[in-house]
Amino acid sequence: MAKKAPRRTAERILEVSLGLFNRFGEPNVSTTLIASELGISPGNLYYHYPSKDELINALFNRYETGLRKLLDASTEVRDVEDTWFVMHSLFELVWESRFLYRDLNDLLSKNRWLETHLQDIIRDKVSSFATLLKNLRSRHMLAMDDGTLSATANNMVVMLTYWLSFEYVQHPREALEPAAAQASLLRGAHHTLNLLTPYLQDEAKSHLQHLVSAYT
Amino acid sequence: MAKKAPRRTAERILEVSLGLFNRFGEPNVSTTLIASELGISPGNLYYHYPSKDELINALFNRYETGLRKLLDASTEVRDVEDTWFVMHSLFELVWESRFLYRDLNDLLSKNRWLETHLQDIIRDKVSSFATLLKNLRSRHMLAMDDGTLSATANNMVVMLTYWLSFEYVQHPREALEPAAAQASLLRGAHHTLNLLTPYLQDEAKSHLQHLVSAYT
Repeated sequence: MAKKAPRRTAERILEVSLGLFNRFGEPNVSTTLIASELGISPGNLYYHYPSKDELINALFNRYETGLRKLLDASTEVRDVEDTWFVMHSLFELVWESRFLYRDLNDLLSKNRWLETHLQDIIRDKVSSFATLLKNLRSRHMLAMDDGTLSATANNMVVMLTYWLSFEYVQHPREALEPAAAQASLLRGAHHTLNLLTPYLQDEAKSHLQHLVSAYT
Repeated sequence: MAKKAPRRTAERILEVSLGLFNRFGEPNVSTTLIASELGISPGNLYYHYPSKDELINALFNRYETGLRKLLDASTEVRDVEDTWFVMHSLFELVWESRFLYRDLNDLLSKNRWLETHLQDIIRDKVSSFATLLKNLRSRHMLAMDDGTLSATANNMVVMLTYWLSFEYVQHPREALEPAAAQASLLRGAHHTLNLLTPYLQDEAKSHLQHLVSAYT
């Protein structure tokens, strides 16, 4: 039992930090507040995470692991139902780590490790979405030239990355509270997939519209 | 002459603050740094702007005045050339006040006045873009049902609001420097108008593609 304790503490620290960062924004949460919320001493917190950046990076690592799994799945979609499912799951993942997206520019400007990792995941998102679109195209569900395909993959990443911020700037008092999650994520997935609609073949288009209206 | 001095100082303070905020990010620029850059005493700065928020709000006011003029113009577009011109001008305006967009969520969470003004301008942007799309539709240049029109107006605002952040997260060392401006703004306008392309009638579509290729 005693051997497991440090690991459990480290995980509890991550859970509590994630909750506080998501709720109040990372710039507004000090390590002192995290220690106090956990009922541990600042020294105990520093033993596990010697700086706030290391806490942020550990949370980012967890996010990145989940993201890579979903991006891998996104390159294997066979139809619009898979596409809708993957997109909604990606929005759920962004929601779970929404603190990263709330202050993205400031976080990366202060943390060299995060700066390079964020560049990598943006590149991987664009390339996974391009593969997803090519898959639908090779199955004759989507008609799109290469230039439009590349621009659309970029636009889909902009939507995925910033949709929650767009909800936040419109409704700052409610948008990041758990009660708003379901509706926000559905609007995000809907608006992102809306970028594909005009290029979908008729059957795929009706299928997507059916899925969107069933969920929203 | 003496009567004009306070006004000139207030304007110089705004210019210098805007330059520093845009270059380093608002959270990284203190009023002490601004006073020192201007070669004035902190007391003199406080005389004109008693808090950093009042400086930010004065800069936001200037931005909002320019924005409203452009949004008014955007509701009067008659063809894709007007549309391209208005969109590029909107991106230029966002560029000039890019500090607002770099830390948007944190700024609005700390400043009640900004919070409500940002909600107003997002609402006005969505509604102006919807009017722009309806204009093109009534001139038979665009074919789009009402649901798609509303979703597209929202997506255009997401692109306008966050494109520069998307450039920044990919190239944080260069994206906000003046040398990057021209190319960033053109990419932003191009990707935003790309949302309309599939709905444009053939002649308007070729016209837009011609404009995009002439500029990029």
